[in-house]
Amino acid sequence: MLDFPVENLSAEDVERLRGIYEPLTKSVRELIDATIRTEMDGDAVAAAKAEIDAATARLRGRQLEGPFGVRFGSDGDQMPWGNVVIGMRNPVAPPLSFIPSEEGGVSADFTLGAAYEGPPGHVHGGVAALILDHALGDAASSPDKPRLTGTITIRYRRMTPLGDLHVEAAIVRTEGVKTFAAGRLADAHGVTVEAEGVFIQPRWARD
Amino acid sequence: MLDFPVENLSAEDVERLRGIYEPLTKSVRELIDATIRTEMDGDAVAAAKAEIDAATARLRGRQLEGPFGVRFGSDGDQMPWGNVVIGMRNPVAPPLSFIPSEEGGVSADFTLGAAYEGPPGHVHGGVAALILDHALGDAASSPDKPRLTGTITIRYRRMTPLGDLHVEAAIVRTEGVKTFAAGRLADAHGVTVEAEGVFIQPRWARD
Repeated sequence: MLDFPVENLSAEDVERLRGIYEPLTKSVRELIDATIRTEMDGDAVAAAKAEIDAATARLRGRQLEGPFGVRFGSDGDQMPWGNVVIGMRNPVAPPLSFIPSEEGGVSADFTLGAAYEGPPGHVHGGVAALILDHALGDAASSPDKPRLTGTITIRYRRMTPLGDLHVEAAIVRTEGVKTFAAGRLADAHGVTVEAEGVFIQPRWARD
Repeated sequence: MLDFPVENLSAEDVERLRGIYEPLTKSVRELIDATIRTEMDGDAVAAAKAEIDAATARLRGRQLEGPFGVRFGSDGDQMPWGNVVIGMRNPVAPPLSFIPSEEGGVSADFTLGAAYEGPPGHVHGGVAALILDHALGDAASSPDKPRLTGTITIRYRRMTPLGDLHVEAAIVRTEGVKTFAAGRLADAHGVTVEAEGVFIQPRWARD
C-alpha cells in the first residue's frame, strides 16, 4: 500500500509553494548542466563547491525525513513534485509535462541536455526507457485508478540525439486489471524508440 | 558514427581532473537531495538560489560547447564521465560502479534516494529500466566492442523501495553481431525487477 498524504493546503497555498520552489529547482537544473560541462580549474571549482555546500546547509535547515512522495492538497490538487520524470521539485526531472493528445492518449514535448547522455551526443537508451515507461503508465492510469508497470518492452529504431524531443503514448486495450499501452519517442526526423507494455491496477487500488 | 575523442592527458592528468571534479559532483548530488526535501520557506530558499546561481555562473566561465561525451586519455583511460548512470561528473548519475561478477557478468551495489522516486517511497519503474539497460549493455559490451540496446524487456516482480540496491547482468549467448543478455535488480529481500535484451554491435564498430 502506498501513502498519498492529503495536506491542509488550499489551491492558493499550492501555488504559493510552487512560486517558492520552482525557481530553486530550475536553478539546480542549470547547475547540473554547468557541473558536467565546466572547464574551470581547481580554485574556481572549489569556490563554486563552497557556494553549493552553503546552499545545501541552508536548505537542510528544515527538511522532510524521507523522499517527497506524492501529496494532495485539500482542494484535490495532486503534487507529484518529487517524481523523477515530471516532478516540479526534482532537479533530476527534465521535467516532462504531459498533456492529453488528440487520439485519447498523452504526449509531451521536452528537451534533454548533457545530463541525460549515454553514447556521446545521444540520449542514454535507459533514459528513453524511463520516459516511455512514464508516458505509457500515465496513458494507462486515471487519477482514481493508478496503474503500475507489469512488463514493458522497448525497441530502439535508431539512436536518439540530445535536444528537442517528443513522446506520446495511448491505451491499446484493457482486460480487467490489465491495461495494454504503447508509445514512441521521436526527434524532428521521426520515431527513434518504441515501447509497449502491460500496466496493472494494484490490488489496493481496486474497487 | 560516434565521436570518442582521445585527449592529450596522461593517467596522472586524469587523476588530477578527478580530484577537482569528483568533489564538486558529489556536492551537487547532495544539493539535489536537499532541494527535493527542504521545508525552508521563501527567504531561505531565495538565499540558497542566489548561491547556486553564483556557482553556476562561476562554472560557466569556461565550458564545453556541448555535452561531455566519452573521452579517452593518452594512456587509454576511458572517461565516460558525462554518463547519466556511471558518470563521475554527472550529478544525475547515482553513480553506479560496475565490477566483474563471479559468473562472468557485471554487478553493482548502490543506493537510490529521493531523486529517483516514482511511486511514494519507491524507485520509479523507469529508473529500474535505466539501470538494467545500462547493466545489460555493460555485460554485453567489451572495451573494443561496444554494443547498443536493440530491444529490452523489463518485468516488474514487485515495487523496488528506495535505499540500498544491487544489480547484476550477464551474457546469455552471442549470435554474430547480436548479444543476448539478462539481469536483475534486487533489494535486501530479493529480486524486484528482471530484464532481458538483445544488444547490437553497431556497423561502425564491426571489424
